[in-house]
Amino acid sequence: MTDLSSENHFQPINLFEYEQLAKKYLSQMAVDYYSSGAGDEVTLRDNRAAFERIKLRPRMLVDVSDRNLTTSILGQPLQLPLLIAPMAFQCLAHPQGEVATAQAAALAGVGMILSTMATKSIEEVASVAHQNNAVQWFQLYIHKDRGLTRTLVERAYAAGYKALCLTVDAPVLGQRERDKRNEFALPPGLHLANLATISQLDICHEQGESGLFTYFAQQLNPAVTWRDLEWLQSICPLPLVLKGILRADDASRAVEYGAKAIIVSNHGGRQLDGAIASLDALPEIIAAIDGKIEVLIDGGIRRGTDILKALAIGAQAVLIGRPVLWGLAVGGQAGVSHIISLLEDELNIAMSLSGCTQLQDIDFSLVKSINI
Amino acid sequence: MTDLSSENHFQPINLFEYEQLAKKYLSQMAVDYYSSGAGDEVTLRDNRAAFERIKLRPRMLVDVSDRNLTTSILGQPLQLPLLIAPMAFQCLAHPQGEVATAQAAALAGVGMILSTMATKSIEEVASVAHQNNAVQWFQLYIHKDRGLTRTLVERAYAAGYKALCLTVDAPVLGQRERDKRNEFALPPGLHLANLATISQLDICHEQGESGLFTYFAQQLNPAVTWRDLEWLQSICPLPLVLKGILRADDASRAVEYGAKAIIVSNHGGRQLDGAIASLDALPEIIAAIDGKIEVLIDGGIRRGTDILKALAIGAQAVLIGRPVLWGLAVGGQAGVSHIISLLEDELNIAMSLSGCTQLQDIDFSLVKSINI
Amino acid sequence: MTDLSSENHFQPINLFEYEQLAKKYLSQMAVDYYSSGAGDEVTLRDNRAAFERIKLRPRMLVDVSDRNLTTSILGQPLQLPLLIAPMAFQCLAHPQGEVATAQAAALAGVGMILSTMATKSIEEVASVAHQNNAVQWFQLYIHKDRGLTRTLVERAYAAGYKALCLTVDAPVLGQRERDKRNEFALPPGLHLANLATISQLDICHEQGESGLFTYFAQQLNPAVTWRDLEWLQSICPLPLVLKGILRADDASRAVEYGAKAIIVSNHGGRQLDGAIASLDALPEIIAAIDGKIEVLIDGGIRRGTDILKALAIGAQAVLIGRPVLWGLAVGGQAGVSHIISLLEDELNIAMSLSGCTQLQDIDFSLVKSINI
Amino acid sequence: MTDLSSENHFQPINLFEYEQLAKKYLSQMAVDYYSSGAGDEVTLRDNRAAFERIKLRPRMLVDVSDRNLTTSILGQPLQLPLLIAPMAFQCLAHPQGEVATAQAAALAGVGMILSTMATKSIEEVASVAHQNNAVQWFQLYIHKDRGLTRTLVERAYAAGYKALCLTVDAPVLGQRERDKRNEFALPPGLHLANLATISQLDICHEQGESGLFTYFAQQLNPAVTWRDLEWLQSICPLPLVLKGILRADDASRAVEYGAKAIIVSNHGGRQLDGAIASLDALPEIIAAIDGKIEVLIDGGIRRGTDILKALAIGAQAVLIGRPVLWGLAVGGQAGVSHIISLLEDELNIAMSLSGCTQLQDIDFSLVKSINI
Repeated sequence: MTDLSSENHFQPINLFEYEQLAKKYLSQMAVDYYSSGAGDEVTLRDNRAAFERIKLRPRMLVDVSDRNLTTSILGQPLQLPLLIAPMAFQCLAHPQGEVATAQAAALAGVGMILSTMATKSIEEVASVAHQNNAVQWFQLYIHKDRGLTRTLVERAYAAGYKALCLTVDAPVLGQRERDKRNEFALPPGLHLANLATISQLDICHEQGESGLFTYFAQQLNPAVTWRDLEWLQSICPLPLVLKGILRADDASRAVEYGAKAIIVSNHGGRQLDGAIASLDALPEIIAAIDGKIEVLIDGGIRRGTDILKALAIGAQAVLIGRPVLWGLAVGGQAGVSHIISLLEDELNIAMSLSGCTQLQDIDFSLVKSINI
Repeated sequence: MTDLSSENHFQPINLFEYEQLAKKYLSQMAVDYYSSGAGDEVTLRDNRAAFERIKLRPRMLVDVSDRNLTTSILGQPLQLPLLIAPMAFQCLAHPQGEVATAQAAALAGVGMILSTMATKSIEEVASVAHQNNAVQWFQLYIHKDRGLTRTLVERAYAAGYKALCLTVDAPVLGQRERDKRNEFALPPGLHLANLATISQLDICHEQGESGLFTYFAQQLNPAVTWRDLEWLQSICPLPLVLKGILRADDASRAVEYGAKAIIVSNHGGRQLDGAIASLDALPEIIAAIDGKIEVLIDGGIRRGTDILKALAIGAQAVLIGRPVLWGLAVGGQAGVSHIISLLEDELNIAMSLSGCTQLQDIDFSLVKSINI
Repeated sequence: MTDLSSENHFQPINLFEYEQLAKKYLSQMAVDYYSSGAGDEVTLRDNRAAFERIKLRPRMLVDVSDRNLTTSILGQPLQLPLLIAPMAFQCLAHPQGEVATAQAAALAGVGMILSTMATKSIEEVASVAHQNNAVQWFQLYIHKDRGLTRTLVERAYAAGYKALCLTVDAPVLGQRERDKRNEFALPPGLHLANLATISQLDICHEQGESGLFTYFAQQLNPAVTWRDLEWLQSICPLPLVLKGILRADDASRAVEYGAKAIIVSNHGGRQLDGAIASLDALPEIIAAIDGKIEVLIDGGIRRGTDILKALAIGAQAVLIGRPVLWGLAVGGQAGVSHIISLLEDELNIAMSLSGCTQLQDIDFSLVKSINI
Repeated sequence: MTDLSSENHFQPINLFEYEQLAKKYLSQMAVDYYSSGAGDEVTLRDNRAAFERIKLRPRMLVDVSDRNLTTSILGQPLQLPLLIAPMAFQCLAHPQGEVATAQAAALAGVGMILSTMATKSIEEVASVAHQNNAVQWFQLYIHKDRGLTRTLVERAYAAGYKALCLTVDAPVLGQRERDKRNEFALPPGLHLANLATISQLDICHEQGESGLFTYFAQQLNPAVTWRDLEWLQSICPLPLVLKGILRADDASRAVEYGAKAIIVSNHGGRQLDGAIASLDALPEIIAAIDGKIEVLIDGGIRRGTDILKALAIGAQAVLIGRPVLWGLAVGGQAGVSHIISLLEDELNIAMSLSGCTQLQDIDFSLVKSINI
């Protein structure tokens, strides 16, 4: 952790520089856990490449002296079309972990999705939101133990989370080979803050396996289907968001089964290697959803122009994941705040240079796919 | 050969790591023979690249708690849609050679195709199959000496092999320049186990040529045509499989001439350099065959997701070649077993993450070609 | 500055060699300012790559013993279809700065566009033109201070500039990270020659920001729209040229609002990173303009064949930017003259080898896009 | 020059190895002259890449025990569909120069095209042909001096050359920067064997220019048009072949003006950089010619499979250039013979592996373009 305001320190000016710098603050095991993708990391790389394949067609001579970047998702106001993706084990990056992330998100008026696998409790993170009326959602993995799952959902609802974000792309854990090689496990002192207390669940060190892999295999339920969404909606009035949709037909089914939003995602390339880049999956999903519910996207967003591209193709907002961890590692809450403000500045500039003064101006004519 | 269970040894966790490790156990001549392709190795590289060009469109919220990977090819049951490709000279990799491979295949319930150019006898390899009711096929090169060819076929039939796999893409040997440079020949003590005994044939060391090239030129018959399939079927009741088809019209002809299955293959890039990647040839062949006989494929398969892609395009099963040799070199039968179990695990995960519980669920909608 | 005629010096023979050599004559801050693009420099690279994606289909057996490279733009005669793009701060490259550039342009009979941000005065640069009847245009940024803007325009008109070139792609400054890192500012002794005198405006050194960024934010007007073109045309009878158009609809609007020419440009990749390569934007714009006004292009032009490609797609002339600065840095006016003459020689050869004797012969059939 | 049969020497086994080895036998100026292309060498590289973009679809189970590689071009019999391209200054590579090349060609039964810029005389090279009834053509540059041109043509006819090959893509010399840098000129003792004797023409060393560039500018006629083909045909009964056609309309015009064959060529990437790869130009030309005259191709052919690809797309034969020079440099006539025999062996293998026993079997269905 460093004093970001000190002149003695290198101050990153974009998200890529944060990634480089963060590696000095993290153990190799943590860097590997955060940065790696599944298998050969083809999807991890392709998420990024997909953004570079899209070219922008900016509009000129528009009065862009005032820009309005605000939006609302599920009727919840955001200062930027940006949410922080659910990510496990944020205390690996910084002692304040998810609390620091939540503070930065609340201060900036962007959304935050807390992971089931958080290292800070549902309630502690929620306490950050109250003073700011912040947008916080709770990300859910459905455990084999339905009682445990219900307890998590009820705690999230009670604590004031405003949506349930069900991750649907992880019936089993992806094949993350760097974690396997490292026999990834939480270091002493870190715990699954919400699960350890209610059922003594934790990510133990088990030889030849990553602790996370074992957890998934033993605790999470690979039998969850569309019908289980009814049960989930019956135990909690919060709007349901599905994270991990990559096909038009699944997107249509999400509407049919009552989801209020979907997140087009391949889990940052960490689940099925070879899965389509999320940006490449977006067009067919936008067409299938046809405005019925909201569509968000994550995967490879590192620049304001990436947000512009995603919105031009039809997303209502985007999620960022890993860059938040880099900010957290470098500077705790201040680092995350800086990450968000860099993206805000970049989106501001990108909109100005494209002739857009509000998010609704970002239309499909702004993008073009050039085969190289 | 190494004790794979020892903690002192590096344990590969995927097939690429096996390739790296195997090179420490093999002579340069053997590494070159196994790993090289013909000419400039364009097809060798493209076989792999073709898999990376295909992207997956996984299906979510399917109950994948139970997966069934079994299938049958030619009515013969397999635990996985996987066969071990016919490969010559396996004793170059390990003293137990083809016998170790056969043991691993039989234990795992995958198919094995024994090469005419084996360094263990037809009968010795077959003996491994009996206790497991394993699926073993015999790969045939038709020699100029028809009597010799007939003897091989009869021995294979008598020994219990369940199909004849005729290699059709090698009327002459491909231009393998590393073998030419090395003047490749079998080291002392290794023999063409099935040919040396009946006709004193062997791969001799002859200056300025690879021994294998000389063998092909002198012994194998470049005059074999579709009509010869009738003769082959007349001397043996085993189902006939053609290996090396790369065009729709040849695939249709295979049906017409009585083949019961075909293997889409470019011989691992070892015959005609510049030949189309086998995965790129698959779609037109699937369309031409239209379900009349079974279609298998080899070339570049290194991951469970590769198997998923091949099956999604329409193959019933896949063959792996070189990775088996790397497993054999590193650990004999145990190494091959590990290779198979890595692929099985990966296919299991890939199916789970794609919403497939049985091989029939792997449909064409799972794949998409993205031009990069 | 070097004596280009001396035998002791390395004499560049193409524009790329000038770029390499120039770096020895410039401070790192100047090299960074001149050579960098916005963000990840994707557009900067793609401008160049777009030219390499276009292949030529030369025509043979045409009598090319005489070639005529002359043209006229806005009725103003040019010896080559070439203008020097407006570029700020040319005294960073050479003490004679914009004056040396203007001398070289006038001598060669190519156009020159003087930047608002020039380090030599409007009148001093204009004095070079009079003896040669040279084509000089004045590039304009509309300042928030309309009086200041009007003063600039009136001075340019009085000094004899023959067109106003309004830059429309810079309502705010692009995100040029190397300048940000360097805290770019003009070195002592250099001034905004036309602004410092009338309103004490200058590019100051301000910590953590580039001086240019601050200037843009404080002085330039991001509220300019199409309607402001009427005002501009009302205060000055010079023909209006819009620089920075990248879309067909904006091109049509330019015609509608009275522009006499447009320049297809992404500001050398310095404004919106990810913007389409200017050559890739050209075809739709040529189609939309349909001959109503003239279309010029800049971005990535380094070879005579690049000019040929741009003209074949439909541009009437091209602008070059950075190479002029490299010439200026290496040899002042003589360096710029050499840059121009290298391009003239190359265009001469390219036309000869394509069967073109005059610019009108350069038709669309000369180009073909090959997907690689 | 080396004894190719000696065991002490490294014996190349393909054309790429010859290129590497040849560089040890040549001056840097000669290597640069032979290997370089014009400008940025984009076309030079693309000529090769175009072949790698084409994939082969081999046909199986054809009796390929006998292959017939013979063909005839202009009714003149060739043992292979191969000619040696006209190349200047072969004595730079070996003292026997064009004579050694002609001997190798005659021995192998492939064609040879003697360059106007030869360093051995028309008559001396022709004397090699007589004992073998070899196919020799004379390549012509039309000089400004028509009398000189006529003398060259008449000498070629008298000496027994069987076709006139007019190079049409060189009205001026391409921009070969390595030659410019080297101030390329013939070393002492080498002469333009056919021009020096009749008009004292030679390639002098002139400062700051390549000697060849000066020669072209002073002696060759950039005014030659289609109508001049009538004059050429009127002074010589030999069939006329046009070398350097890259467009369908020029190909049609060639037929109209009486050419008996064309060579699709971009002069090995040495004239117009950015010109389409010759293989990419071939399909439209084959369609336009529609069998009326014969079509040959050069540019990037280094493998037997390249010949197969060119013939599959519709060429009747191919030319090789630079590889002959590498062979010449390494071993004189023996080196060229080896180059030819390597290609013959490779074509033999490629045809065998594709199911082709004669050149007519090489049809369009053998190739497929795969976008990567």
